[in-house]
Amino acid sequence: VEPRAIAKAAQDCSRRLAAAETERKNRALLDMAERLRDGRKAILEANACDLAEAESSGVPAGLVARLRFDGKKIDARIRCLQKIASLPDPVGRSFRRTQLSNGLNVVRVRVPLGVILMIYEARPHVTVNAGAFCLKSGNAAILRGGSEARHCNRLLGELWGASVHSAGLPTDAIQVVGGSHEDVNALLALDELIDLVIPRGGKELIQAVAERSRIPVIKHYAGVCHVYVDRGAEIDRAIQIAVDSKCLMPEVCNAMETLLVSKDMAGHLPAICAALKACGVRILGCERGRAAAEGVAPATERDWETEYLDNVVSIRVVDGVEAACEHINRYGSHHTDAIVTPDATRAQRFVDRVDSAVVLVNASTMFCDGESLGMGAEIGISTDKLHARGPMGLEELTSYKLVIQGDGHVMGPRFGAGEATDERREAETTA
Amino acid sequence: VEPRAIAKAAQDCSRRLAAAETERKNRALLDMAERLRDGRKAILEANACDLAEAESSGVPAGLVARLRFDGKKIDARIRCLQKIASLPDPVGRSFRRTQLSNGLNVVRVRVPLGVILMIYEARPHVTVNAGAFCLKSGNAAILRGGSEARHCNRLLGELWGASVHSAGLPTDAIQVVGGSHEDVNALLALDELIDLVIPRGGKELIQAVAERSRIPVIKHYAGVCHVYVDRGAEIDRAIQIAVDSKCLMPEVCNAMETLLVSKDMAGHLPAICAALKACGVRILGCERGRAAAEGVAPATERDWETEYLDNVVSIRVVDGVEAACEHINRYGSHHTDAIVTPDATRAQRFVDRVDSAVVLVNASTMFCDGESLGMGAEIGISTDKLHARGPMGLEELTSYKLVIQGDGHVMGPRFGAGEATDERREAETTA
Repeated sequence: VEPRAIAKAAQDCSRRLAAAETERKNRALLDMAERLRDGRKAILEANACDLAEAESSGVPAGLVARLRFDGKKIDARIRCLQKIASLPDPVGRSFRRTQLSNGLNVVRVRVPLGVILMIYEARPHVTVNAGAFCLKSGNAAILRGGSEARHCNRLLGELWGASVHSAGLPTDAIQVVGGSHEDVNALLALDELIDLVIPRGGKELIQAVAERSRIPVIKHYAGVCHVYVDRGAEIDRAIQIAVDSKCLMPEVCNAMETLLVSKDMAGHLPAICAALKACGVRILGCERGRAAAEGVAPATERDWETEYLDNVVSIRVVDGVEAACEHINRYGSHHTDAIVTPDATRAQRFVDRVDSAVVLVNASTMFCDGESLGMGAEIGISTDKLHARGPMGLEELTSYKLVIQGDGHVMGPRFGAGEATDERREAETTA
Repeated sequence: VEPRAIAKAAQDCSRRLAAAETERKNRALLDMAERLRDGRKAILEANACDLAEAESSGVPAGLVARLRFDGKKIDARIRCLQKIASLPDPVGRSFRRTQLSNGLNVVRVRVPLGVILMIYEARPHVTVNAGAFCLKSGNAAILRGGSEARHCNRLLGELWGASVHSAGLPTDAIQVVGGSHEDVNALLALDELIDLVIPRGGKELIQAVAERSRIPVIKHYAGVCHVYVDRGAEIDRAIQIAVDSKCLMPEVCNAMETLLVSKDMAGHLPAICAALKACGVRILGCERGRAAAEGVAPATERDWETEYLDNVVSIRVVDGVEAACEHINRYGSHHTDAIVTPDATRAQRFVDRVDSAVVLVNASTMFCDGESLGMGAEIGISTDKLHARGPMGLEELTSYKLVIQGDGHVMGPRFGAGEATDERREAETTA
């Protein structure tokens, strides 16, 4: 199908989706969960095809691993669909309600963005998650996964089509598309039809999308995430957080890449390094770090900006919280950074100064994760500052409109400009 | 000064501004208000220079009018500065606070965007407003006004420099810059130093900025705004709202350009047209409209998309609220649209279906205005759906960070992923 026809079909059905009842959207999500359960065998077969083709064509092992969609991962997607169905619908929710002294009532009401284009590599689970987030938030989705996952994605697309149809929603609500790189570039030029692009994958993919797109893009390029062990930190706690941040899932963007240690804590480096090494982590370090612990290879300036996505960590001894913040803001990727400290003042200093999407105090960087944060999962993580920052869920896929209710109000003869008399902000409420 | 040096200076001081105390920012705003009062004579002289040059070089009359910065306008800017000083500081405000069942506390905290580049034509008052909004929201501002206003803008830039300096803030907080078109294009390429671009002016200017910018842009191209007079509307009220929307300030983007009238109300068209004509408005209309009222010239398809910004209105008779919504979504600019109706159901239908930044019920389109909405003024009006929609004030110039507070939390051995136990949304509160 021609790119413009795909985008036009998405826009055409986006108005119907914007008005779709919550119950109907939830029915499609739960139907999809059923289809994943019932279709497990076919999904595993399609995934096996993709894996066989990837292996025979010499795709890197890391990519092959991300391509794998096994029974456990299917179960996780089923739970994710059920969770998203259980979350409140953001569409129609109102916020910042104020009454002006001239009697006008002003409120902002959440509306879907319209059409969302997702461009991603490998992981077929994105086809489930992204479709679910877009559908529940009332947006039409165009999902363009990598060609290496095409058998699995095609099947998941068919299941989505059947689910939205069975709920009485337009089948173009979730379009899983293939096509050439030129087709993708053609989609990225259609800013009159598509409202948002979310790229997920390697840095090259994301850069290529950001450079070519005429449509707003929300993205993160990399996750160079830090844990800073502050003066006075309880060492067992520091080790647990460092090990969890590095070793639980070294391949994810919020895994720790650099451990910063206050010079007052350098004496604990042998214990910290031993714990990391016991988990199979290779350690690179600055000079002070290498003087404090054995078996640490030298780190170069380059290491401070490197996202290893592997069992490797760089360690740097810093003078204190200010130096840690400076290092993070200079070398980091504004993604996710944590401090381990017993001191509330220095914790606040770290929170205030570190210019990152997610800042944690006494917690593992693993918690930068939509599922952990009660969002069901996430459609992406943003290190941009416009619109959404950090893990993106349902609310981050909405815009709003201002609704002003008067009683014959005109500005000229009868009414003044008016002041907002109710400055107190109300919580967001279901309309 | 070289564009990169300007942007670098802005970024360098943006971290200090992000941490600036509210009281200090307010002091700079009130100091600027004093300087406008004390410097009134010099400002009027600088403006007179600009006006003389504009007139002698054959600048269009409309542009000359927008260039004028008289005593009344200076007074309005003084009030605007005082109002913005009185508004709550958005920086540091927290929202969406939740406690997860595993004990983690999650909250979003507002932070400045960083560096904002404003590109605008004529109106020197933007130099005051934009500087004030950026400063109060903790952002560094680069203000690039049109060369036709250069004498006045240069002086206002000096006043800003003195005001921020006197409050102990970095003088590069608000940079009023000139330079060639090439310099502007060079600024628009600096996406690693500048966080947001807001263009204001003619459609050509805004398109040129949007096409060239590598930095996110928030904008509106045009304001093709509508008033729809629904079946059963009280005719005096409808006429008042139509006349106010068209005639109070025909040159502004939220002035009505097309009046839609339900076929059931066509009998009132002679009275409506008479009222508009009495205000000097020229009327173009569809066939049904011309059949109902005399002295209406024929409107072409082209008229439905035209932003007159003048004493001209197009009138179309439509079958009802559905047809009105279709017309608005098809021909409008997603800016500001109003319905006049006695019927709450049809009002809600209009609010739901019209895909515009601001939708009004029984009120003039003139109320799409930051001052009227208690925001002090507005730095721009967005018809985009990402980040901000409608009039943009202080809060719209902020981003946020997620702050997660734990007590040694790790995801692996000890704690589960956790559920948000407190789904109730809290109001935004000062941190």
